[in-house]
Amino acid sequence: MKEILSNVRDAARKLALLSPGSRNTFLECFAEKINLNRELLLNANQLDLKKNGANLSSVLLSRLKLDDVKLNQIIDGIRDVVKLPDPIGKLLAKTELDTGLILDKVSVPIGVLAIIFESRPDVIPQILSLALKSGNGVVLKGGSEATETNQAFIKIVREVENKLSDFPSGWATLIEGRESVFEVLNYPEYIDLVIPRGSNALVKSIMEKSQIPVMGHSDGICHVYVHRSAEPKEALRIILDSKAQYPAVCNATETVLIDQVIAKTFLPELVILANENKIELLGCKNCQMFDPKISAVENWSTEYGDLRMAIKIVEGPKEAVEHINLYSSHHTDVILANDQEIIESFLQQVDSASVFANCSSRFSDGYRYGFGAEVGVSTGKLHARGPVGLEGLLTYKYIMRGSGQVVKDYVGKEAKKFTHRIFS
Amino acid sequence: MKEILSNVRDAARKLALLSPGSRNTFLECFAEKINLNRELLLNANQLDLKKNGANLSSVLLSRLKLDDVKLNQIIDGIRDVVKLPDPIGKLLAKTELDTGLILDKVSVPIGVLAIIFESRPDVIPQILSLALKSGNGVVLKGGSEATETNQAFIKIVREVENKLSDFPSGWATLIEGRESVFEVLNYPEYIDLVIPRGSNALVKSIMEKSQIPVMGHSDGICHVYVHRSAEPKEALRIILDSKAQYPAVCNATETVLIDQVIAKTFLPELVILANENKIELLGCKNCQMFDPKISAVENWSTEYGDLRMAIKIVEGPKEAVEHINLYSSHHTDVILANDQEIIESFLQQVDSASVFANCSSRFSDGYRYGFGAEVGVSTGKLHARGPVGLEGLLTYKYIMRGSGQVVKDYVGKEAKKFTHRIFS
Repeated sequence: MKEILSNVRDAARKLALLSPGSRNTFLECFAEKINLNRELLLNANQLDLKKNGANLSSVLLSRLKLDDVKLNQIIDGIRDVVKLPDPIGKLLAKTELDTGLILDKVSVPIGVLAIIFESRPDVIPQILSLALKSGNGVVLKGGSEATETNQAFIKIVREVENKLSDFPSGWATLIEGRESVFEVLNYPEYIDLVIPRGSNALVKSIMEKSQIPVMGHSDGICHVYVHRSAEPKEALRIILDSKAQYPAVCNATETVLIDQVIAKTFLPELVILANENKIELLGCKNCQMFDPKISAVENWSTEYGDLRMAIKIVEGPKEAVEHINLYSSHHTDVILANDQEIIESFLQQVDSASVFANCSSRFSDGYRYGFGAEVGVSTGKLHARGPVGLEGLLTYKYIMRGSGQVVKDYVGKEAKKFTHRIFS
Repeated sequence: MKEILSNVRDAARKLALLSPGSRNTFLECFAEKINLNRELLLNANQLDLKKNGANLSSVLLSRLKLDDVKLNQIIDGIRDVVKLPDPIGKLLAKTELDTGLILDKVSVPIGVLAIIFESRPDVIPQILSLALKSGNGVVLKGGSEATETNQAFIKIVREVENKLSDFPSGWATLIEGRESVFEVLNYPEYIDLVIPRGSNALVKSIMEKSQIPVMGHSDGICHVYVHRSAEPKEALRIILDSKAQYPAVCNATETVLIDQVIAKTFLPELVILANENKIELLGCKNCQMFDPKISAVENWSTEYGDLRMAIKIVEGPKEAVEHINLYSSHHTDVILANDQEIIESFLQQVDSASVFANCSSRFSDGYRYGFGAEVGVSTGKLHARGPVGLEGLLTYKYIMRGSGQVVKDYVGKEAKKFTHRIFS
C-alpha cells in the first residue's frame, strides 16, 4: 500500500505542473475514448450486474446499471468540466512587503485525494474529471458491486495516459476491499484529504479513525420551521417539496417545527397533505394530542431518508433555533415566515452550513448554487462548508520573490519599515 | 468537562451575534483594565516565578516574566486588534439563483477554539483578543508554570464581562492539567478547531489523537537552496539571517543545499561565515570530503532550533526540489539564484506553504506578511496554510432568501431554468 500511495503522490506532483491545456486535452480524450469503448464498458457492467443481481434490491440494481443514456450523460459531464475555468494558479492576493519583496498568494492543488464512493458507475468518471481539472492525484475506492465497471473506466484512463506523452502515469489508482480504506487513513504523508461518500455508518467510522482531514457529511438532518407569520399554503408546498421531492437525499427535510400559535389550524392541514402524499408523521406529545394517529418520535436526530417525517410544536423562534442547533446535522435548515425581523434573526442564529428563508431545503446543492460541478456537501466548518465545488479541491501557497532582503534589517532601532502595499 | 465545554459553546453562539462595536468595546475595556490592574498581574506573575524559578532555565524564566514593558506591549497589542476591520459578516459571494431566490455566502466565526499555548504570559491576552475579535469562544490551556498569571488575566476578563451588560459570560475558559487537553479532543460537538502551540512532541500527539481538526505545525524544517547562478555574497548574507537571526523559531533554516557546480568555492566561504558566527555545520559525505571538520548529519528531518545547521551538496535544482519535498516540514523553503527560469520552476515545484526566492526564510510570518495579527503558522493544506491571520478563525455560511420556490419546479420537462447571476 505504501508504495502505491507514494506513486500517486509522485504522479500528483507532476500533474500539478502541467498546463491547463494538457489537463483539458486529457479530459477531451477521456470523453472520446468512453464514447468509442461503449461496448467494453457495458460488458464490464453486465458482469457486475450478473455477479450481484441476486443480492441487490431493484433500486440498487438500477443505480448500478450502465446504459447508453447514462454514458451520454457521463460524456457530457466530462465535457462540462473541460469548459469550467482553470482553477489552478489563480492569484488570490498580492502584497508588496517592501520595494522588490513581493508576496503572492496563489491557488494550488491540494495534492492527493482519497475518495470513497458508492456503487454508481457514473460517479467514477465524474470524480476523475474533477480531480484532474483541479490537478489532484486520486486514490479511489468504489463500491465492490461495481468493481468490473470501475476497472474498465480506469483502463480507459491508462490508455489516455499512454496516448499523451508527458502525462504522469498513475495519478489515479483504484484500491479494493473495505480494509484497504482504513489502511489508507494511516498515511497522512501521502494523502491530503479524504472524501467519503456512501452510508452514514461508513462515513462516521472514517471520520473517527482518520488521521487525515475528512471532508463530507455523515448525516443530513434538515429542519423546516414554520413561524406564525408564514403563509400556510406556501408553507405546505415548501414542506412537501423539502420532504418528498426526493426523500433519500441528504438535503431532504426530516423534521418540521410548528409555531404553537398556528398549530391548531396548521397541523390539520399538514396531516391532510401528509395523507395525500403517503408521508408518515411522527410527532411530539403535543402533536399526538392534536391527532392520536400520529406516532411518537423516538429520537430527534434520526435521518429517516424515506417518507417518514417528524413534527414538533415549538413555543416560538427561540425554541426553534435551540432545537435546530441541538439536533441538526448543520447541513441545511429553513424558516418559513413573513416577519422580516424574525427571518433575519433565524438566518443569523442557526449555526448550519446553509440556512434558508421561504424556499425548499432541497436547493442546498452545488449545481443549484451554480458551482458547475459538485464535489460533495460538507457539514464540517473548516476548509469548505456546505455544497463544495471545484474550489474545495484547491489550497493555496505563498510565493515571495525578493532581491536579497534579510529580516535583520527590519528589526531593532534603525529598522526598515514594511510598506504592506496591497495590490487590488 | 462536558458541562464546561457546553457552556462555552452556548456563550460563543451569543458572542457571534453581538455587534462589532460591542466586541471592540470589550477589548478597549480589557486593555484599560489591564492598565489599571498592573499590580495584580505583576504580583500573580511573581508567584509563578517563585514557584518555578528553581526548575526553569534563565531563558524560560525571562519568557515567563511579566514587567511593565511587556504590559505596555500587551495593551498596545489589544488596541491594535481593535483597529483591525471587523472580519464577521463579510459578503464573500452573492448569486441570484432565480428571480427572488438570492444566495449569500457570508463569513461567520468558526465557533469554539481550543488553544494550547506555551508559558509566555503575553500570549493569553493576544489569543483572547483575536478570538473575541473573530467572535469565537475559547477554551485555553496555558503552560502550568504561568498558572497564576493566566488566572489573573481571566479574572480581568470576568470583570469586563460583568461591567458590560448583554455580554455572554464564559466565552473564554481556562482549563488546567495536561490530561484535560486530551480530554477536550474527544468533544467535537463542542470544539470546532484545536490550535496547539508549544513543543513539537505535544503538538504531534495532539494531531494524532484529536477527533477535531487541528491547525498548526509540529516541525519547522526549512531549507535554503543555493543555485549555481546565485550571487555568493548575497547568498551568505541570506543564509546567515535565515539561520542565525533567531535560531529557535520555526521559520529559521535547518538545511542549506549547495549546487555542486559552485561547492568548491562556496563551501569554504560558508565555513568561514559559520565559524565567525558560531554556527556548527553538519554535512553530507561530500561536504565532509571538502572539510573533515564537518561532522556527519544523522537525520535530514531534524529541527535543530539552535546554531547547528545541516549542509548538503546536490547535483542541481532537480535533486534540491526532491530533497525538499521529501524532508521539508512544508513550512518555508527558499531558492537563491539569478536564473529566472530556475527560480520560477523551483517556486512552482516545491510543495510548501511558503516558497521564497532571494530573501530570508525568516520573513515567513503573519506580521511581516501584513496580516496585522498572527494566529499561528499552519503546515496543513486544508482551511488555512502558512502564516494565518484573523481570517483563519472564520468560516462561512450560505444564507438563501427565497419567495416560495420549490425544487420540483426546476426539474423535469418544463423545468424553470436557474439564472445563476453572479453579483460582483
